[in-house]
Amino acid sequence: MITITRLDAADADTLIAGAVAQADDLRVPMCIAICDEAGQLIAFRRMDGGKITSSTIAIDKAFTAAGAKKATHEYGAISQPGAPAYGIQSAIGGRLMVVGGGLPVVMNGDVIGGIGVSSGTPDQDRQVAQAGIDAFQRSIRQAPAK
Amino acid sequence: MITITRLDAADADTLIAGAVAQADDLRVPMCIAICDEAGQLIAFRRMDGGKITSSTIAIDKAFTAAGAKKATHEYGAISQPGAPAYGIQSAIGGRLMVVGGGLPVVMNGDVIGGIGVSSGTPDQDRQVAQAGIDAFQRSIRQAPAK
Amino acid sequence: MITITRLDAADADTLIAGAVAQADDLRVPMCIAICDEAGQLIAFRRMDGGKITSSTIAIDKAFTAAGAKKATHEYGAISQPGAPAYGIQSAIGGRLMVVGGGLPVVMNGDVIGGIGVSSGTPDQDRQVAQAGIDAFQRSIRQAPAK
Amino acid sequence: MITITRLDAADADTLIAGAVAQADDLRVPMCIAICDEAGQLIAFRRMDGGKITSSTIAIDKAFTAAGAKKATHEYGAISQPGAPAYGIQSAIGGRLMVVGGGLPVVMNGDVIGGIGVSSGTPDQDRQVAQAGIDAFQRSIRQAPAK
Repeated sequence: MITITRLDAADADTLIAGAVAQADDLRVPMCIAICDEAGQLIAFRRMDGGKITSSTIAIDKAFTAAGAKKATHEYGAISQPGAPAYGIQSAIGGRLMVVGGGLPVVMNGDVIGGIGVSSGTPDQDRQVAQAGIDAFQRSIRQAPAK
Repeated sequence: MITITRLDAADADTLIAGAVAQADDLRVPMCIAICDEAGQLIAFRRMDGGKITSSTIAIDKAFTAAGAKKATHEYGAISQPGAPAYGIQSAIGGRLMVVGGGLPVVMNGDVIGGIGVSSGTPDQDRQVAQAGIDAFQRSIRQAPAK
Repeated sequence: MITITRLDAADADTLIAGAVAQADDLRVPMCIAICDEAGQLIAFRRMDGGKITSSTIAIDKAFTAAGAKKATHEYGAISQPGAPAYGIQSAIGGRLMVVGGGLPVVMNGDVIGGIGVSSGTPDQDRQVAQAGIDAFQRSIRQAPAK
Repeated sequence: MITITRLDAADADTLIAGAVAQADDLRVPMCIAICDEAGQLIAFRRMDGGKITSSTIAIDKAFTAAGAKKATHEYGAISQPGAPAYGIQSAIGGRLMVVGGGLPVVMNGDVIGGIGVSSGTPDQDRQVAQAGIDAFQRSIRQAPAK
């Protein structure tokens, strides 16, 4: 057997709250999804005005980042024409996302989940996802015995 | 043009909080999804221990209840062998749910969204969905000027 | 965070070997799939002569048993016409299996994975899945310090 | 009628064992899939730590290599912008893989199956797939009367 550590529902709330605060600062309503380390959805929020096309994209960015243990913008770089992973963006029925905005959540070197953000530019999405992770990292440092 | 009234993200929080409280009372961790009146996902939560097979089921129950303006258990009755809607459970790639636990959210006679719950028995799922709606109705009465 | 225990690749080998031995006894070549507790595929084997239509069915039985923490034949009973979960067999794009042959793998009361078997009658499939679990349980007792 | 020669379950074990040994050497846990000449899955293994996003990708690489009788990296070259097979990577619901790591298994000039590997870089995936084929070829030479 293997023992795994993963995000719980309270962690997902913290990640979403951090992302929402950043999205509010940017004045861009976002779709935000949190997956566990197995790529399974834990929580989702579409802010008022978030794009309905972004729901699935946010969920799939979180799935990709958690499952592949890689930021989606890294896939963006290596899936360009001529690059080694060209074509990967159509894989898994199109669920493998190579557009920025999906980040793995890492603790002690292990991927324990993923966050995916969509509705802004890829740079905005990535910034909002990072803000979610920053909020989560702060919450861990404030409650080290958790 | 048509003007539509629908649930917003804060309403979704209220619905989920009411459902979570009931699920805690039942000691059954649930997947809970909220859709707007167009059947589009607003919010989702998988409580710690909620079944991963229930994520899609909860989302599709909310989608069905909001979009078809009907409780999913009502579809359960009319989709039995020999009944008029027999076979409807396979429609929309299997997204049309006929198992109890999906309820439309209604205000002034209009469907403004849907809630879908899954992980318990269909009766438990329905009870938890109703608790979400009850919490939402209380929040409206307490804030009549909204 | 949550800490989870799940099947590893060596456990999957043990489960498959136990199932294959029973399938050989029955002289029915089977498709056998092992998922982790999150419903993600770990291992699959189609024995020579196993049905190609059974590959997806075996994988989805393992997914259902692991993810829903329930034997697929239990869903068979509660999804009959007039029963509470009628219609659930079309859920998740048809991945939720209600035909016997999918069993959760349980240790210390926790579901740590699932096994799915297909190609025989549902009773044969279930018998072969159980033989896989029996082999796994024996392996744990023989190596308690693992 | 046509008589077909294809990989059997024991061959699949040999292919996977060869691939796993190479993956261990590279210290990259991999997902490895073996299909028969009809593109149908025979065997699959996700090594401990293999990416869950790579399960479907490995299966689809094996499917593509066996069914199209071509290495997936060859499709990578001819599906670049401006090249003759541009766009093929979205075909078959995204199952046609153009990223390296899928190789046909050939005997006496006939394709008798395929191996697909995913979780590393495309070069690592391809190297591991080749190691599986090498092990299979050695096993044939050692048992010429098979």
